[in-house]
Amino acid sequence: MTVDSDALTPDPLDRLTRWGRPAAPVTLSGPAQRFLGAQVGLATSGSVVPVTPLSVPPSRLPAAASTALAAAVGQAQVLVDPMTRLLHSRGMSYVDMMQRRAADTGCVPDAVVQPATHDEVLRVLRICVEQQIDVVPFGGGTSVVGGVTRPAGPVGIVISLERLSDFVGLDEVSGLVRVQPGMTGPVLERLLDARGFTLGHLPQSWERATIGGYAATHSAGQASSGYGRIDDMIEAVTLATPVGTWSAGRVPASAAGPSLLQLALGSEGAFGVITEVTMRVRRTPKARFYEGAMAPSFAAGVAACRELAQLNLTGAVMRLSDVDETLATLAMSGPSGVKRKIFDRYLAFRGVPAGVLLILGWEEHSTTLLDAHRDAAWTVLKKFGVVSIGKGVGASWEHGRFSGPFLRDTLLDSGYLVETFETAGAWVDLPNLHQVARGAALSSLGGNGHTPYVMTHISHVYETGASLYFTVIDRGGPESIARWTSAKKSISASLQPAGGTITHHHGIGRDHEPWLAAEIGARGIGLLTAIKAELDPTGIMNPGVFTRVAT
Amino acid sequence: MTVDSDALTPDPLDRLTRWGRPAAPVTLSGPAQRFLGAQVGLATSGSVVPVTPLSVPPSRLPAAASTALAAAVGQAQVLVDPMTRLLHSRGMSYVDMMQRRAADTGCVPDAVVQPATHDEVLRVLRICVEQQIDVVPFGGGTSVVGGVTRPAGPVGIVISLERLSDFVGLDEVSGLVRVQPGMTGPVLERLLDARGFTLGHLPQSWERATIGGYAATHSAGQASSGYGRIDDMIEAVTLATPVGTWSAGRVPASAAGPSLLQLALGSEGAFGVITEVTMRVRRTPKARFYEGAMAPSFAAGVAACRELAQLNLTGAVMRLSDVDETLATLAMSGPSGVKRKIFDRYLAFRGVPAGVLLILGWEEHSTTLLDAHRDAAWTVLKKFGVVSIGKGVGASWEHGRFSGPFLRDTLLDSGYLVETFETAGAWVDLPNLHQVARGAALSSLGGNGHTPYVMTHISHVYETGASLYFTVIDRGGPESIARWTSAKKSISASLQPAGGTITHHHGIGRDHEPWLAAEIGARGIGLLTAIKAELDPTGIMNPGVFTRVAT
Repeated sequence: MTVDSDALTPDPLDRLTRWGRPAAPVTLSGPAQRFLGAQVGLATSGSVVPVTPLSVPPSRLPAAASTALAAAVGQAQVLVDPMTRLLHSRGMSYVDMMQRRAADTGCVPDAVVQPATHDEVLRVLRICVEQQIDVVPFGGGTSVVGGVTRPAGPVGIVISLERLSDFVGLDEVSGLVRVQPGMTGPVLERLLDARGFTLGHLPQSWERATIGGYAATHSAGQASSGYGRIDDMIEAVTLATPVGTWSAGRVPASAAGPSLLQLALGSEGAFGVITEVTMRVRRTPKARFYEGAMAPSFAAGVAACRELAQLNLTGAVMRLSDVDETLATLAMSGPSGVKRKIFDRYLAFRGVPAGVLLILGWEEHSTTLLDAHRDAAWTVLKKFGVVSIGKGVGASWEHGRFSGPFLRDTLLDSGYLVETFETAGAWVDLPNLHQVARGAALSSLGGNGHTPYVMTHISHVYETGASLYFTVIDRGGPESIARWTSAKKSISASLQPAGGTITHHHGIGRDHEPWLAAEIGARGIGLLTAIKAELDPTGIMNPGVFTRVAT
Repeated sequence: MTVDSDALTPDPLDRLTRWGRPAAPVTLSGPAQRFLGAQVGLATSGSVVPVTPLSVPPSRLPAAASTALAAAVGQAQVLVDPMTRLLHSRGMSYVDMMQRRAADTGCVPDAVVQPATHDEVLRVLRICVEQQIDVVPFGGGTSVVGGVTRPAGPVGIVISLERLSDFVGLDEVSGLVRVQPGMTGPVLERLLDARGFTLGHLPQSWERATIGGYAATHSAGQASSGYGRIDDMIEAVTLATPVGTWSAGRVPASAAGPSLLQLALGSEGAFGVITEVTMRVRRTPKARFYEGAMAPSFAAGVAACRELAQLNLTGAVMRLSDVDETLATLAMSGPSGVKRKIFDRYLAFRGVPAGVLLILGWEEHSTTLLDAHRDAAWTVLKKFGVVSIGKGVGASWEHGRFSGPFLRDTLLDSGYLVETFETAGAWVDLPNLHQVARGAALSSLGGNGHTPYVMTHISHVYETGASLYFTVIDRGGPESIARWTSAKKSISASLQPAGGTITHHHGIGRDHEPWLAAEIGARGIGLLTAIKAELDPTGIMNPGVFTRVAT
């Protein structure tokens, strides 16, 4: 694989087509291969790297803009080499990955600019307004909804937040951390841990995603049931917008008009660039206990989770798989051979022969509190027939909690289609929403005797409802991009009529834009448009997000 | 007292000048009278009712508007009699009460219109747009910040929400109630209690305030530390705006763009009329325990409250008084005579001779959970030297929790000035914020050897900070309106530089408008203006709230 004539290190090449290379390679075990083979057929052919060279058009950045940008941030921070531009041209959805593997570069920005301060971002934006240059803010680039996909159109740059990634300060009394947007989760957690604190925000994209990206997309993490979504954590933000600085938020709360902070959260780069975030952090819990459990059915598990949420007994992690996800998990990473038979007999003996997996993570500030919380929760869980399968399962889940994206790499390498989608709904709607969304995925991808594999889990419980997270595995192949793109439309169209939202935590980006109006109404679109007009009057910020770009 | 020539029942007369007439009259005990006499001097002269007739100018409602409004909602629902208009002309702050007691009616709306459905509100607003008639939405009328004060200017009406007060429905599975805005807290709690649920929102204005008013003003209640502010409870709203219907919110959560719901919450009638609210409700707790405690000092109490909040051990109610509020509470409603001596000796023996009062209210779904929670909390409290003074004090506080407004009536009747103000700040700023705000109240009202009495409590704790609620008692008298108005300006000016917000839960209204720009910045004002222009392009909605009215 070559990109123009540049000499490439292995790293950037990998970044174009896969999540990464873990220290211990993630492979498909024999049982996993057999399970997938039985469910969706044997993989077609692997698709590791493009067979033809990636062709990147030359930068169209006008000389005047180039000079002005260099004056604003330094010549070395205005990058126009093909590989850097390619690396900042899109996110990491299945389609993103597969198009690159098929040597389709899509639209590539004309430059990647790397400001190091808020004022530098303001200067870059002023230049872009003057020269009518589009801007896509870019953190970890992990969007799976086209949130950082460079749109076709006029000259455009990416503002990379890589150099705007400092730890600004920690107020240990109030429990508030201030950070710049380009910092990733692991870096922040290391800094906080050394001071006895944690943010507790662990999306599956944790290793690559940035704090600014969390804030811009309503991110939710694996421990959000206990720690809250990112929206619950953020108390203030500062943005650089095309019309200047905008700061919003008030600690700890205020009744001084509507919360404008909430307009910045989930703004997906369409209003400006988030340049600083103030977040509530918590003291590192002194007691942790992660365990596995089996509920007799998905319906019973849902009822048990609902009861815990509504009785204020939620764990930090509450992840309930449906039957299909449970079967896949057991087949692909559970016990095998004789051990599996013993495990199955144990489940039958305990009354959950066809049960569903529930991962429970408890985190408290003392073992006494943890025991009290867990005892109360188990009193509830037992009423719904839930049985423990021990802390080994919990430890195993924790160990592999960030392995999903690496497993995806392996599945793509093996020629499978693998993608996720997510929604959320009120408890009263959840069972039907699960069936409808699952059915849409099965029917839009299957047919002619072929069935894809669709598995679901609840990843975040609220008092009034829960999220549903779906993973689809199907045969890959050259036409799988078009097949998935079509299926995604059918799936998206199924969610809102069943009481679901188009997205629980991935955001709108460009992929969900067609369903935004159905979600927030014409009045909502009008409001977003008015807000954008106020902050970004010439419409240079992340065009196509919230506002449809004429094509 | 007379209002024009109308025959008046005693009830509306009372409503103009006092909170109400409780079943058991609230009187000032001998010790209370002596305490106040010693602190701020003897009351001047009572001020129960105006001595001169209240003069209400005739309605200026044009005949065309009158006819159109009558066609929209029915002739009987377009009220132009002086008393009804007077009753809907302002809120219930000290100045509101005193001006009326001084026979100053202020500006009075030209009509009070009472729609009974969302569509009727839309129709009324359309007429008001066409005829350029100002609109003030009016729920319980309990604003203490001029939120429903009829401004001077063109013809204006009040939309009363009295007839838009139905219980729409309860989803017991998801724990979601839908109600119309004119319902009051007690009515809702009775309806919910019969079904085993509670909203748990108990502002001191509970007996009169409406759900729509809660939503429009970022209301917080006495149990907000446990149940959350109203913003945490509301999951969806519908508004009738001058440009049509606007619905916002998604259950339970969504990443589909910025939360537009949060623009409706705290909108104070400036964008439209809230016509329906969907709120999270909780099952009625099975175990409750309210108790009193004494911390050795306000600083120690603040530290203890912070620790509880940050270790997730917050009670449903956590109310910490400072030394002055503690002294006043003990003097005015605590033990007296020999009992007081015994009580003081007990406090000295326990090491809190000059302690501060802490009310703790625990509410859980089982006594086991309550005991575990309370035990863990008391382990923390004891570290800070907090000692229990028993559940009798808790019961006494609960018994009198809504008596404050009635006590204010009695104090006004006795010729005292009494008013409150509130703020919130990060824990790190709280001690200084307390001193600064208190100092501003003392210095702006005191002088020449005279000192008002200022007392403070924390009424709502967050992980990152807390609210501060101040009560000021001073000599009344005819010039007290001007004296307080001037002091309020000094106090308001002191809050933001000390890290406080201009308001924690009372809202902006007209009284706090001069400090809004300092709170949200010019960019924030620009955004509110753009949002208002989108929803209320002709600027008829509650003019003067968020947008300064040219005078």
